[in-house]
Amino acid sequence: MSLNSYGHLFRVTTWGESHGPALGATVDGCPPNVPLDEAAIQVWLDKRRPGQNRMTTQRNEPDAIEILSGVFEGKTTGTPIQLMIRNTDQRSRDYGDIAETFRPGHADITYWQKYGIRDYRGGGRSSARETAARVAAGGVARAALAALLPGVEVRGYMVQMGEKTIDRARFDWDAIDRNPFWCPDPEAATEWETYLDWLRKDDHNSVGAMIEVVARGVPAGLGAPVYGKLDTDLAAAMMSINAVKGVEIGEGMAAAGLTGRANADEIFMGPEGPEFSSNHAGGILGGISSGQDIVLRFAVKPTSSILSPRASIRKDGTAAEVVTKGRHDPCVGIRAVPVGEAMMAAVILDHFLLDRGQTGGTRGQIGPPAS
Amino acid sequence: MSLNSYGHLFRVTTWGESHGPALGATVDGCPPNVPLDEAAIQVWLDKRRPGQNRMTTQRNEPDAIEILSGVFEGKTTGTPIQLMIRNTDQRSRDYGDIAETFRPGHADITYWQKYGIRDYRGGGRSSARETAARVAAGGVARAALAALLPGVEVRGYMVQMGEKTIDRARFDWDAIDRNPFWCPDPEAATEWETYLDWLRKDDHNSVGAMIEVVARGVPAGLGAPVYGKLDTDLAAAMMSINAVKGVEIGEGMAAAGLTGRANADEIFMGPEGPEFSSNHAGGILGGISSGQDIVLRFAVKPTSSILSPRASIRKDGTAAEVVTKGRHDPCVGIRAVPVGEAMMAAVILDHFLLDRGQTGGTRGQIGPPAS
Amino acid sequence: MSLNSYGHLFRVTTWGESHGPALGATVDGCPPNVPLDEAAIQVWLDKRRPGQNRMTTQRNEPDAIEILSGVFEGKTTGTPIQLMIRNTDQRSRDYGDIAETFRPGHADITYWQKYGIRDYRGGGRSSARETAARVAAGGVARAALAALLPGVEVRGYMVQMGEKTIDRARFDWDAIDRNPFWCPDPEAATEWETYLDWLRKDDHNSVGAMIEVVARGVPAGLGAPVYGKLDTDLAAAMMSINAVKGVEIGEGMAAAGLTGRANADEIFMGPEGPEFSSNHAGGILGGISSGQDIVLRFAVKPTSSILSPRASIRKDGTAAEVVTKGRHDPCVGIRAVPVGEAMMAAVILDHFLLDRGQTGGTRGQIGPPAS
Amino acid sequence: MSLNSYGHLFRVTTWGESHGPALGATVDGCPPNVPLDEAAIQVWLDKRRPGQNRMTTQRNEPDAIEILSGVFEGKTTGTPIQLMIRNTDQRSRDYGDIAETFRPGHADITYWQKYGIRDYRGGGRSSARETAARVAAGGVARAALAALLPGVEVRGYMVQMGEKTIDRARFDWDAIDRNPFWCPDPEAATEWETYLDWLRKDDHNSVGAMIEVVARGVPAGLGAPVYGKLDTDLAAAMMSINAVKGVEIGEGMAAAGLTGRANADEIFMGPEGPEFSSNHAGGILGGISSGQDIVLRFAVKPTSSILSPRASIRKDGTAAEVVTKGRHDPCVGIRAVPVGEAMMAAVILDHFLLDRGQTGGTRGQIGPPAS
Repeated sequence: MSLNSYGHLFRVTTWGESHGPALGATVDGCPPNVPLDEAAIQVWLDKRRPGQNRMTTQRNEPDAIEILSGVFEGKTTGTPIQLMIRNTDQRSRDYGDIAETFRPGHADITYWQKYGIRDYRGGGRSSARETAARVAAGGVARAALAALLPGVEVRGYMVQMGEKTIDRARFDWDAIDRNPFWCPDPEAATEWETYLDWLRKDDHNSVGAMIEVVARGVPAGLGAPVYGKLDTDLAAAMMSINAVKGVEIGEGMAAAGLTGRANADEIFMGPEGPEFSSNHAGGILGGISSGQDIVLRFAVKPTSSILSPRASIRKDGTAAEVVTKGRHDPCVGIRAVPVGEAMMAAVILDHFLLDRGQTGGTRGQIGPPAS
Repeated sequence: MSLNSYGHLFRVTTWGESHGPALGATVDGCPPNVPLDEAAIQVWLDKRRPGQNRMTTQRNEPDAIEILSGVFEGKTTGTPIQLMIRNTDQRSRDYGDIAETFRPGHADITYWQKYGIRDYRGGGRSSARETAARVAAGGVARAALAALLPGVEVRGYMVQMGEKTIDRARFDWDAIDRNPFWCPDPEAATEWETYLDWLRKDDHNSVGAMIEVVARGVPAGLGAPVYGKLDTDLAAAMMSINAVKGVEIGEGMAAAGLTGRANADEIFMGPEGPEFSSNHAGGILGGISSGQDIVLRFAVKPTSSILSPRASIRKDGTAAEVVTKGRHDPCVGIRAVPVGEAMMAAVILDHFLLDRGQTGGTRGQIGPPAS
Repeated sequence: MSLNSYGHLFRVTTWGESHGPALGATVDGCPPNVPLDEAAIQVWLDKRRPGQNRMTTQRNEPDAIEILSGVFEGKTTGTPIQLMIRNTDQRSRDYGDIAETFRPGHADITYWQKYGIRDYRGGGRSSARETAARVAAGGVARAALAALLPGVEVRGYMVQMGEKTIDRARFDWDAIDRNPFWCPDPEAATEWETYLDWLRKDDHNSVGAMIEVVARGVPAGLGAPVYGKLDTDLAAAMMSINAVKGVEIGEGMAAAGLTGRANADEIFMGPEGPEFSSNHAGGILGGISSGQDIVLRFAVKPTSSILSPRASIRKDGTAAEVVTKGRHDPCVGIRAVPVGEAMMAAVILDHFLLDRGQTGGTRGQIGPPAS
Repeated sequence: MSLNSYGHLFRVTTWGESHGPALGATVDGCPPNVPLDEAAIQVWLDKRRPGQNRMTTQRNEPDAIEILSGVFEGKTTGTPIQLMIRNTDQRSRDYGDIAETFRPGHADITYWQKYGIRDYRGGGRSSARETAARVAAGGVARAALAALLPGVEVRGYMVQMGEKTIDRARFDWDAIDRNPFWCPDPEAATEWETYLDWLRKDDHNSVGAMIEVVARGVPAGLGAPVYGKLDTDLAAAMMSINAVKGVEIGEGMAAAGLTGRANADEIFMGPEGPEFSSNHAGGILGGISSGQDIVLRFAVKPTSSILSPRASIRKDGTAAEVVTKGRHDPCVGIRAVPVGEAMMAAVILDHFLLDRGQTGGTRGQIGPPAS
């Protein structure tokens, strides 16, 4: 049991602190013979990397991935894959204030209360920088999915920033990669840019966000009752991301407001198998994938580190006013998009391997026997 | 690794099908010397038990708990506790339709797709009846908490049924046990009763619900970065409950709409330690409890089994119209209240044991050294 | 994590005390569609059952297995299988002495030291009676192997009792089931019978034993580096059996005395794949099965409960002379034979499922490509 | 679940191949505030390091440890500790033969059969070089034991090399560190040196060994029934080491030859608690430590890589004669001494943490109440 790990057969353990020498992920259980090299992982890290535009923190690091084990002649060997990213831009500085003061809304105080010691440099282990290791591990998961379940596609995007939501009528898959918010609504993206500039520069504030992640092409039958459910593992995966405060599948929290008649996804027989009239379930029934798109959303709270002063205390109990001056994302949710994708990819791969182990991938037949 | 288990040191595995001879929970890792007997568990099962009023299914079973192991002379011994509930009211009947037809919104189709076999009687393993085993295990967790962390109190209640929500201004802790909805707003409870009667009898429909669970008195320091977070485990625990589609902690999904200034819980030094100006965080920072109330909500979708006809298919691919005539809860969320409480209690106990193991319970001091 | 469980994907948790109401095993991860009923398990329990002859304890219980879940219409469903055996012959008696006194060589004292409470009736959880649950779970493993790997055969037998060993020149597979010792050497069996009668009745003593278990027909490729090795899991499985003090694979402890030239199993190409000149390795290389017979031995210490007086102490620290009068096996190793078989079957099944999950069962080719 | 990990709360995952860029260990669950730096680990690595004398392989690498995470200002923080050792002496060479041919007694063939790919350079993941990572992790375990259980001392030594065993009458703790075999019998050590020189240079052979590891000062109460036993975990830990073929606790395999009267460790009340007349049990009763010395032995087979030709096959099925010319230990058991110590230390720490979590360290009292 490791509290810094996730996954059953595809098992990822991340390690490292924000301002230590390096951080990374130990990936165990990746199937053998999967084509993999640094470039296949770097592309996802570049997507998450800070400093690419003024919307995210100006910390400028290459986040270059090194594969230290588990790959031979361009293919995975079935042994643990060690992924390492050197921290190159930890500016030497006076951490005195941070060392003694607890930032409101931060893990500073709870780490201290739990451990009686904390690496306060840049937030240490609680920094969002940890998610770089998740994205790297997600790159391995994507490579394995490409080899084993080539039809699966995992896409994430932002659907809300603060009080501003996208207009689903303008949803455009192609727009996602064309704006710094991974926003599928180009008009919303333009509006968000203006808003975020004002928020950061003038309001000295930050803002929350809602991310949606969709997996297409996932075969029916992945998942398991009743605690190893696909949605249970997805919920845990997303909730484990820094600053996430809520997770929902399909209708999600709105399901509380629906009636059974409205919520039921009716079933019809299509040319290639069962089809559904709708997807209130978000692609999961009883914890097992139905073959529909898997759809989830998670909420990312606003960055706690802001330029506006907030009341707090020091370790010695005296009052302090906290103003965080460092380089911080005004909307940490933006970078949560590739992180959510990475976690989704890892969970799907994991359940594919589990299902293969437990059932051998046999499926109950639906429809008349092939003649 | 077991996909029918949850918990790290306090490890619960549930087993059993709705219409099999029995169901239960294997509870491993309960500390020794905890006073425990059947009565201490039965009280929680009685709270969840169906057939108590017309708001829940009329299946009438005593749900009598038997402790088969792990308890000696009224105390736990540190060995596995086996909890068994006999199924006594599985009416013999013709299951023919259910066996061949997939109910919309149900796990019928995904179990079949995954396993190529399913115990269709009463939903088998996917039945909400499985939650009786969770409530029994939660009874053990509560007994252990009472012995080890006597200040902890876990309470759940319904805050929404369909489109109808409670008025927080009328929130009354004492009202919760006085109505069949575990509703803290007595006026809302009266309204819900009328609505649910109509829904079931006239509309032949069902409805979703939102449950809130609060844990008071949880000490600071429980939880762990970064995948064994207290909120990660709570999210997984709640999402694993049948029909749950979303989970949120503190501000939850609404955190996406907030700014950092609004969301930060400012910290002050109180007479007995740190105090917070608000609880947007829901009592958890960086995955670790802060000492504030832990507050979560989860959404339960409306029961799929309704009297209104819905379109579906049979195993052979032919179209079918499904009308579920059996005894079913019009709002399965009602009975999810004690289930959510049970899961919360189990997770808190588990993290208390984990913390004791990993840190020995040492805490960083806040405030001036005692003179 | 459960300390009363073993297995990765085929996960068994046993529960129950010697003189409680029942004991059993929760079996999670059994593949679906495996034919299974009580009779298929009972046959193995009958093999282990005490009271069959004067060589084992006279406790006379039917040890009737009940399947409480996970099986539907004679086949496994992929959900947890609960196996229960009622304890029917716990004679009411005065346990006063046992309650206060620690038997030498027994877990009495360590259970008390660890937990500060112990179910002393019949040894409680530390009783060899727990192995009935293992044998039942092994019955499930055997059924699954029969369905999924039909060529696998697991056989155990006694090769040593006290200082008396079998003569390998007289090894006869057919003899094993024809004597109460599961001894493959009929002459040794006759001698052992006389010896054990004398030991029990006249010498008031007990004696140790060595068990060998062989698995034939296990395909190459099961196991994994470097802590999930097949031999690692076999060693753990056997060492977890009551009274076992040593485990060895292939040459085992004798490998310390060999040279590399003597120990190497040379490889030749046979008509159906690689063949080996010998099997010093016991069928496992680098933690992975080679296709040869898997051969292990484990040593069972003599029963601590004997009629000869031994010095000990009571809980209050006063000296006591312990004479155990109850019904006890003079050679508990005899009944360890079916237990060792059960554990071997469970480990092999588990690694078959693991391998299927992790590699999909793909194998490196040896030999010329098929033309 | 990770097949490259061991431990429950103190969880170690090793990674890396013999000739890859680096290898290491991810150590999760180390308690916070343990003093730790590179030097504290390096001392154990230096003990295991090859090239120190002519008894071990001449591969000459500094095996310099780097701590990449989890330590702050000289103390552990409770977050994962990443330990890395760069591989600096992988001579570039022609691996052609090894790539296509399976060495007898080696994992070459089973890795190929399982994965269909293998990093053949220096044995890849199956190389004994992996044990450097174990020793590093063991260094962390030792540091934590020193902080939490300062009385515990773990010592290993060789008691047999080939057919040559030590004379226990000459056992001298101080001799262990004074010869290249970690042999407690100085006369035997001298004899072994001559023998091993001849074996390597003239006989072109290798030889097996028996290692004994003793832990003193382990408190009573560590371990747990019935699969999380202390001896179960020790057996697994030792069997997981490369080339180990057998493990035994206390009397071990010899227990099969004893009678109950001879084997029982009688108990007496000493001034500070229970004392035992002997230690046949090896310090463990019912899977739980008794406070006596924990004593185990494990057998290491002779190195398979020898200069004498052995028959084998190539991947294409053709016959090959294998002569291994590289740098190889004639007795790999020598370097297994610090590895066995490291595993013992890790298991004891793990069970200390587990016990603290599960029981809070409460103990049953033995002796009269303090007046």
